[in-house]
Amino acid sequence: MTPDVAYINDLSKKVIENDRTTLAKAITLIESTKKEHQKIAEGLLEKCLEYQKESVRVGITGVPGVGKSTFIENFGMLLVHRGKKVAVLTIDPSSNETKGSILGDKVRMETLSKEKNAFIRPSPTSGSLGGVARKTRETIILLEAAGYDVILIETVGVGQNETAVRDMTDFFLLLKLPGAGDELQGIKRGVMEMADAIAINKADGQNVQPAETAQLEFSRALHLLSAKENGWIPQVMTCSAMQNTGLKPIWSCIEKFMLHTKENGSFHRTRKQQNKKWLRHHLNHILLQDFYDNPTLSQALSSMEEKVMESEITPFVAAERLLRAYRKA
Amino acid sequence: MTPDVAYINDLSKKVIENDRTTLAKAITLIESTKKEHQKIAEGLLEKCLEYQKESVRVGITGVPGVGKSTFIENFGMLLVHRGKKVAVLTIDPSSNETKGSILGDKVRMETLSKEKNAFIRPSPTSGSLGGVARKTRETIILLEAAGYDVILIETVGVGQNETAVRDMTDFFLLLKLPGAGDELQGIKRGVMEMADAIAINKADGQNVQPAETAQLEFSRALHLLSAKENGWIPQVMTCSAMQNTGLKPIWSCIEKFMLHTKENGSFHRTRKQQNKKWLRHHLNHILLQDFYDNPTLSQALSSMEEKVMESEITPFVAAERLLRAYRKA
Repeated sequence: MTPDVAYINDLSKKVIENDRTTLAKAITLIESTKKEHQKIAEGLLEKCLEYQKESVRVGITGVPGVGKSTFIENFGMLLVHRGKKVAVLTIDPSSNETKGSILGDKVRMETLSKEKNAFIRPSPTSGSLGGVARKTRETIILLEAAGYDVILIETVGVGQNETAVRDMTDFFLLLKLPGAGDELQGIKRGVMEMADAIAINKADGQNVQPAETAQLEFSRALHLLSAKENGWIPQVMTCSAMQNTGLKPIWSCIEKFMLHTKENGSFHRTRKQQNKKWLRHHLNHILLQDFYDNPTLSQALSSMEEKVMESEITPFVAAERLLRAYRKA
Repeated sequence: MTPDVAYINDLSKKVIENDRTTLAKAITLIESTKKEHQKIAEGLLEKCLEYQKESVRVGITGVPGVGKSTFIENFGMLLVHRGKKVAVLTIDPSSNETKGSILGDKVRMETLSKEKNAFIRPSPTSGSLGGVARKTRETIILLEAAGYDVILIETVGVGQNETAVRDMTDFFLLLKLPGAGDELQGIKRGVMEMADAIAINKADGQNVQPAETAQLEFSRALHLLSAKENGWIPQVMTCSAMQNTGLKPIWSCIEKFMLHTKENGSFHRTRKQQNKKWLRHHLNHILLQDFYDNPTLSQALSSMEEKVMESEITPFVAAERLLRAYRKA
């Protein structure tokens, strides 16, 4: 099956011109599980990689309720007003059509979504974390070819999602709530270690004082961690996304980080390592696909599944037999 | 390489006798990444599957700070007092030695950990979610062969971890905090849909009223979801793990669930489906291992990684070439 070269050329030309309809369509092709769509997507990505612009990739995380949407809405608007082209992606494999919250996504980022220089794309609605992450990684390539300057990648919660986002971003921002007691307990050491900056959000009204206390405590906690390899000292700031305060210093911090890491070479070193991981993810994907796409094996798989379900054989024996069948095929 | 049969027989005998030192050692073998350990572990698991007891597998989740440790400590003690043998496992691939919280794990479950009829095993300290989940799945087999009646599997946060736990448990309990406003926003629809029961924890003192309000709201929210395939209607309860109140009704609820699902056949149907997923996970693991263990391919891999890091070729082309090399090898 040879993908249509003329079609790919046309798509990539329009993506590079930042034709938004084509961009949306191209991302849908990336997210598709259909073999023929995947082939087109790969061809398109090959093309786009040639036109890749060095954007600023920012990962943003925080527990539900910390105000990520409001933050991204107003932070994105700040960047748009400074002449930046801003794209927003989400990594949230557990979400369904409502994208994670019962309230749904329609009320999120209303102003930003109307901006000519902003492009918002929700998470693929299905798939494993690995799959979603891989597709987000590929979408970044399209966005960079389309000339976006800043790519904000939002993720929810604590844990694996963050690692996935860390592996595809330059700067990692952790949003926290004021109120330190319970909060400190809840800090995942791994997520703390990933953060290049922590912003205590909702620092307004009665929360200003608790936010400043939290800022102090987080600064102390960060000092307990060993220094980052890239020589960057994580910053702790306060802000109120709702009241649009404290957002400018966060962007300044990101700019300072970019300068710092580009000067000492860690920026490109990190990107190289990320490319390596990207290869690993893609390789694992096609290795497994090679097994599952083989029609002669799918029958053997069904039969083994049946046996395992009925406890006739163990998963270990069944998998061993399937591997042998794969090697022969 | 043939694993030592006599050694495996000795190990499995002691595991089945619930020799705790051997049990701990056997789990360490399961968690090991060394090839020879894995072979022993597989042999051991084969043996243990013959002696498997039908335990109650309970997944417990909730955001950091909801009080999972205190809950498990006191809920576990309740079960021990009722003559049950209780095991506690954790799925938390993002954690380090401190198991997720800066406070560390030493202060967690102090009473339960001293109980003769309780066995607590923290999460493997490294590995991907898939790896950790697979190993937890295998550990369950050992614990069941050792005669544990109830296996509590704790997980942190929202999202992928929960899906992994759901795939290896019979009953899924979601712990929530009182205070409904922010909470409802933060509910991940996916996690809500998984829950067989929700317990609003910390329902004590001034929190009793907010907890009851939350109970009402969650009941309503659950009614918006379509009915479960197994005919079970998820329950919403309140409790205070700290004050040891409301825990008995939660155990009654689990007992009722077991009766209900065993009567209508969904219990065994679900377990069969879980076995099928287990096969898939293990199969994916050994398929990839077959590539990465091949010494001739590891050189090709290094060379492709180098090229991708230097942007000489794209991950797609590199992966395609490696797949071809694998097929030849």
